[in-house]
Amino acid sequence: MAADEITEALNRIFNADSELYKERGFMRRVGFGKRPAVVNIDLANAWTRPGSPFSCDHMDTVIPSVQKLIETARGHRVPVIYVTTAYQVVDGLATDTGTWARKVPIESLAVGSPEVEIDSRIAPRPDELLITKKRASAFHGTNLSSVLIGAGVDTVIATGVTMAGCVRHTVEDASAEGFRVIVPRECVADRVAGVVEWNLFDLDAKFADVESLDTVLGEIEKLPAGGEARAAA
Amino acid sequence: MAADEITEALNRIFNADSELYKERGFMRRVGFGKRPAVVNIDLANAWTRPGSPFSCDHMDTVIPSVQKLIETARGHRVPVIYVTTAYQVVDGLATDTGTWARKVPIESLAVGSPEVEIDSRIAPRPDELLITKKRASAFHGTNLSSVLIGAGVDTVIATGVTMAGCVRHTVEDASAEGFRVIVPRECVADRVAGVVEWNLFDLDAKFADVESLDTVLGEIEKLPAGGEARAAA
Amino acid sequence: MAADEITEALNRIFNADSELYKERGFMRRVGFGKRPAVVNIDLANAWTRPGSPFSCDHMDTVIPSVQKLIETARGHRVPVIYVTTAYQVVDGLATDTGTWARKVPIESLAVGSPEVEIDSRIAPRPDELLITKKRASAFHGTNLSSVLIGAGVDTVIATGVTMAGCVRHTVEDASAEGFRVIVPRECVADRVAGVVEWNLFDLDAKFADVESLDTVLGEIEKLPAGGEARAAA
Amino acid sequence: MAADEITEALNRIFNADSELYKERGFMRRVGFGKRPAVVNIDLANAWTRPGSPFSCDHMDTVIPSVQKLIETARGHRVPVIYVTTAYQVVDGLATDTGTWARKVPIESLAVGSPEVEIDSRIAPRPDELLITKKRASAFHGTNLSSVLIGAGVDTVIATGVTMAGCVRHTVEDASAEGFRVIVPRECVADRVAGVVEWNLFDLDAKFADVESLDTVLGEIEKLPAGGEARAAA
Repeated sequence: MAADEITEALNRIFNADSELYKERGFMRRVGFGKRPAVVNIDLANAWTRPGSPFSCDHMDTVIPSVQKLIETARGHRVPVIYVTTAYQVVDGLATDTGTWARKVPIESLAVGSPEVEIDSRIAPRPDELLITKKRASAFHGTNLSSVLIGAGVDTVIATGVTMAGCVRHTVEDASAEGFRVIVPRECVADRVAGVVEWNLFDLDAKFADVESLDTVLGEIEKLPAGGEARAAA
Repeated sequence: MAADEITEALNRIFNADSELYKERGFMRRVGFGKRPAVVNIDLANAWTRPGSPFSCDHMDTVIPSVQKLIETARGHRVPVIYVTTAYQVVDGLATDTGTWARKVPIESLAVGSPEVEIDSRIAPRPDELLITKKRASAFHGTNLSSVLIGAGVDTVIATGVTMAGCVRHTVEDASAEGFRVIVPRECVADRVAGVVEWNLFDLDAKFADVESLDTVLGEIEKLPAGGEARAAA
Repeated sequence: MAADEITEALNRIFNADSELYKERGFMRRVGFGKRPAVVNIDLANAWTRPGSPFSCDHMDTVIPSVQKLIETARGHRVPVIYVTTAYQVVDGLATDTGTWARKVPIESLAVGSPEVEIDSRIAPRPDELLITKKRASAFHGTNLSSVLIGAGVDTVIATGVTMAGCVRHTVEDASAEGFRVIVPRECVADRVAGVVEWNLFDLDAKFADVESLDTVLGEIEKLPAGGEARAAA
Repeated sequence: MAADEITEALNRIFNADSELYKERGFMRRVGFGKRPAVVNIDLANAWTRPGSPFSCDHMDTVIPSVQKLIETARGHRVPVIYVTTAYQVVDGLATDTGTWARKVPIESLAVGSPEVEIDSRIAPRPDELLITKKRASAFHGTNLSSVLIGAGVDTVIATGVTMAGCVRHTVEDASAEGFRVIVPRECVADRVAGVVEWNLFDLDAKFADVESLDTVLGEIEKLPAGGEARAAA
């Protein structure tokens, strides 16, 4: 099945589904709040470079899109936060891989290895947080929520991979926590066909506003430009 | 687009995707643990009966399947837990609908209304918990994890609706918390086309074992039969 | 040992301890943020009225102090949130009392009973949330954090009982979540001697600013007065 | 005020308080479960060695006691988990110190510094987890709960420092999560007078069993001895 056939088949489903959703009051617009943060999910070498079980497609779109996003964010004092996934103990009486290793090949993601390091093309600055998570969601088992509350954030702009795994779960959790959530379409990807489309569809129906990168950049540019980054608290 | 066309198109995508997933070490089997619990998600009247914005399809399959599941569970001292979604304050300085009401029509789900009551055909017994949640996941903002730990549970059997919303997020969270997760295919549903299929596909690839009801019943029947239900603690 | 002897002995310890704390950089002032909320913990009949295992002392100070606090808060559009503790299933395969019932007599706190209802002298208005918790902390297993994020709150003003149990744990959790925490001294109590004093000491050293009620009222009065309460979101 | 005077004054208070607690059904015994884990809290150089704002007293008792505990645990396949506190960003738009730095001098605890490394006298083995936390509780913003669930743990044996801060909050959270909690008296300490005593008193009344190290060792020795440590899952 060719990529355009898949897209066409899925779009026909989405159109029918959207009609019912709208009729019933779903698919509302959350909108931007006053203080967004960018959360980049798993844009580390295992996912952004070829040759890993985790390698994703469409990095030629995602990397430059995320570059634009974080440059604009930094120019307007919008916090940029990075998340990666890495494990310390995969064999012991108590492990950080845990039961999830029974489902997905996380045993290959070692703390401190180049695989779990953020892609150098979009690397964090020294004053930007890098959070190491153990599960799909950037919120689960991490201090991300506490960081966002401490920084007065009300809106999460989520980017990264994979759409069907870590981005999906992170977006659902961000919404559950009480944040507005925005997903810039050009900034997310995956490694198998179709899953970007159907997960964006589900998220836009129930958890987040899926927007073009241009729309997101435009919203950030409405915020006051800032010089040196300093803590809000 | 007819239902069988949708299924056929999706199955062609799933087959291609599965090949890549298996090659890369995804789609492993989690397997059953020693002490499962059944968690029934949002099987309340707003979802199981017609006439609500939340009404779901395929209740003629889901209700009898869940009936069989909980009967078997009760016969083998497997805890059965119910979850519903209901709100107390939709307009005030601090609400329990919060930002989620900006996306989905939860303002109609009032605490104490018949809509949020569990469907009488599968009603909880007096010694079975009914947890009221505010977000998609049965774990978010609830004591479900604490209840499961207190009961010594290691495996969550998740049923209910909707597949693209509350079941999906609950399964992801259960997996993140460290439980094994099993989804009996006949016990889940939704209200728009395609979403049951693609969400089961994503979950089986990364978060849970999707199994037939018969397989799940067979696993429960291997556990010692029990008489009267009493707390494990 | 008379009450004033206890106080004197404790104060001598606190003075010595404070010197070391200050020398080392503890006991800093957190200060008020821009958007506080009042969280009233367990001010329900089992705690505020005589005759229960949970009955607390000093309600002649606490009740009028909380009355003043919530009146002032309501006049300045500061959200007032109530928390109580109540259980649905104390005997079953999975209970909401869980292992905590092995330590404290929570089996007597039934959902829907007058004991767990908020004291009528400080009752919630219809547009104010009442959250039912199962553990000491008002954050644990509840949606309180999500409610506060949704309402844009940055500061938690904590009142109620008991100081050594639910107030202490709630304050620690509020601080961990990233909120500033303020405890008005006249608004907290307990049922045994000494514990109010030493828990306020610990909290002020490490987790919250313990302030006089007058100071707290003064800070709230700096906020713009508001008419009708409406959601911030 | 001399140490023995403090102890005597506190003991007189505790005795009076205990009478009322017991009369009302508090201070019950939780007891050991079937699968304990040892959680060592902040036994890193900043706390266990002199010269830091965080340095604690009584390490001549705590270190040998924890040595005995972990040796016995390792001999019986009881998981040993370590927790330390360290920060990456203390000045930026979003920091991991956050609002807590407004209260306590955590800005000096840098990720990767010798201060936050576990004391070499009780160092983790390569197959034992070291979790880095950002708040007082070892559960807050970490994957500790998920690790314990994945390892089938039902009982947390908590050691470390400080009693009034990180140990207290961790014990409360462990209890809230649904675990049984045991505190071996010789394995905890603090840096100011009195706080070990009154926090152990509060915890024993409401959250955990405070026991002698000998009692705890005796319980672990009842478990089957094990050779090489291997994951339970």
